[in-house]
Amino acid sequence: MSTGASPLRPAGALPAAVDLMEVSPRDGLQDFPVPVPTATKVELIRRAAAAGIRSIEVASFAHPTRVPQMADAEAVIAATADLVDVTRVALVLNDRGLDRAIASGIRHVNMVVVVSETFAQRNQGMSVPELLAVLRRIVQRSSEHGVSASVVLSAAFGCPYERDLSPGAVRDVVAAALDTGPSSVTLADTIGAAVPTMVGDLVAWTVERAEVSVRCHLHDTRNTGVANAIAALQAGATGLDSSLGGLGGCPFAPGATGNVATEDVVWALERMGVRTGIDLEQAIETVGWMQRVLADGGRPIGGAVARAGQFP
Amino acid sequence: MSTGASPLRPAGALPAAVDLMEVSPRDGLQDFPVPVPTATKVELIRRAAAAGIRSIEVASFAHPTRVPQMADAEAVIAATADLVDVTRVALVLNDRGLDRAIASGIRHVNMVVVVSETFAQRNQGMSVPELLAVLRRIVQRSSEHGVSASVVLSAAFGCPYERDLSPGAVRDVVAAALDTGPSSVTLADTIGAAVPTMVGDLVAWTVERAEVSVRCHLHDTRNTGVANAIAALQAGATGLDSSLGGLGGCPFAPGATGNVATEDVVWALERMGVRTGIDLEQAIETVGWMQRVLADGGRPIGGAVARAGQFP
Repeated sequence: MSTGASPLRPAGALPAAVDLMEVSPRDGLQDFPVPVPTATKVELIRRAAAAGIRSIEVASFAHPTRVPQMADAEAVIAATADLVDVTRVALVLNDRGLDRAIASGIRHVNMVVVVSETFAQRNQGMSVPELLAVLRRIVQRSSEHGVSASVVLSAAFGCPYERDLSPGAVRDVVAAALDTGPSSVTLADTIGAAVPTMVGDLVAWTVERAEVSVRCHLHDTRNTGVANAIAALQAGATGLDSSLGGLGGCPFAPGATGNVATEDVVWALERMGVRTGIDLEQAIETVGWMQRVLADGGRPIGGAVARAGQFP
Repeated sequence: MSTGASPLRPAGALPAAVDLMEVSPRDGLQDFPVPVPTATKVELIRRAAAAGIRSIEVASFAHPTRVPQMADAEAVIAATADLVDVTRVALVLNDRGLDRAIASGIRHVNMVVVVSETFAQRNQGMSVPELLAVLRRIVQRSSEHGVSASVVLSAAFGCPYERDLSPGAVRDVVAAALDTGPSSVTLADTIGAAVPTMVGDLVAWTVERAEVSVRCHLHDTRNTGVANAIAALQAGATGLDSSLGGLGGCPFAPGATGNVATEDVVWALERMGVRTGIDLEQAIETVGWMQRVLADGGRPIGGAVARAGQFP
């Protein structure tokens, strides 16, 4: 995961390359209806790495009784320690999560700060100001342990409880999060409520203020994932989260599409001249493997490109 | 269907409004695996009109033995003649199709000119120059009968046989088609091979040369439909084709997504401030009706917004 400053480029232009972080092992499996064995998670991570993906969110240090699907975070991290050319990232939600992350030996954490008050309380049992205080401690403590700490600003384009948030309120949380000194900031469309104009506006505003990389985490819930990805890059984002096979879902819209599919993003971006470093054929083969191995999760797996095939 | 000249607006800006042409009765049903009764087609057209859709492609005058699903074109047109505030359009592929269209009393036809030589031969049994000559006759003859004739340039962003076409060759066909004097021109991504940069480039080039409206017909085969729709509008297109429920398919990619879904386009555009005149709730209800009535076609029906619901 690139954590340097964003290079300047003409407004609206696409970058020459983008850093895609694979989130299927975490966002895709974290509320999977059936438990996925540690060995399967490890194989998914290894297959993603073999396809050329260089940033992978491998686990979450959520409370194991609350999110049992991620209870084996330490084991997944230990079993993938040899992937030295991959930036492995773990999600943390609080200080206890960071304790576990540091003990696990992982070098990069993403701390989640939900932008809306109601969702913050329901997701992490804290207010937004409390979450920002935790973020400040986590950035500080991570730094002391040689761990880089980024922030994911969740529900930045709409909340399942409060619906549309005021742009001013969102920007205040973004500014406060930047003030804690994270190594990058990810603006997350957690429930797939964003359209490209919203993404472009918030990314551009954030890029102007941030001294670190600005990224987007996008869901394809309402079919705007690819359009939002392009708008994010045009506004100066340097990285995107995506998920092989579109694995993931939206607990607030049962049956809906999940994260924007890695294969769809790679196909569209490469065809527009934006390098991803990912071998699309291998990525599609991995989706086929996921369909065989994870089918009992009862979730549709496969982005449009995995179904239709490449072109040309 | 708006057929006037495109108003000037700043480069990259979205228009205040867009004309969406509903193509589910034609493109959605033309290669439907089971025959759809005329009464069902008529009800689909009436439901689309009731949802506020003002342009509907209701039928195709393809040869009835070659496309039996469209053999009742005259009956569908007769049964919807009372929809006086809807622009009903029929597809024609040749002179014989125009004869039938004129006899049916419909006032608007779309003539198909495939941009690639191989696909032109396979689709219409003619070369591209032959198709352009037919187009010229059809524009002339339509005019004599008070019928407006538009042109659809099929496979403008990629051909199932020749794969990527040279941009120069495509532009030559666009220019030749414009020269025949159609009332509008539609650039069609027949197989879902386009990405936004390609759409933006060809639409902008065409808008610069055309004295008539430029439209796009987009498929969501590789999940770029919404992004391409936005790129088309930013480049000066004034209209788009879409299909309720994403009804349609791609005969060259079995199982793939079809036309970009009307409900997905409406949701994204309205949320960005582009008026469509379409009641999204009624459009989604119509998709629910389609799922009940057309389910035996064995095709997935329903865009992302129909599955996930609106937001906010």
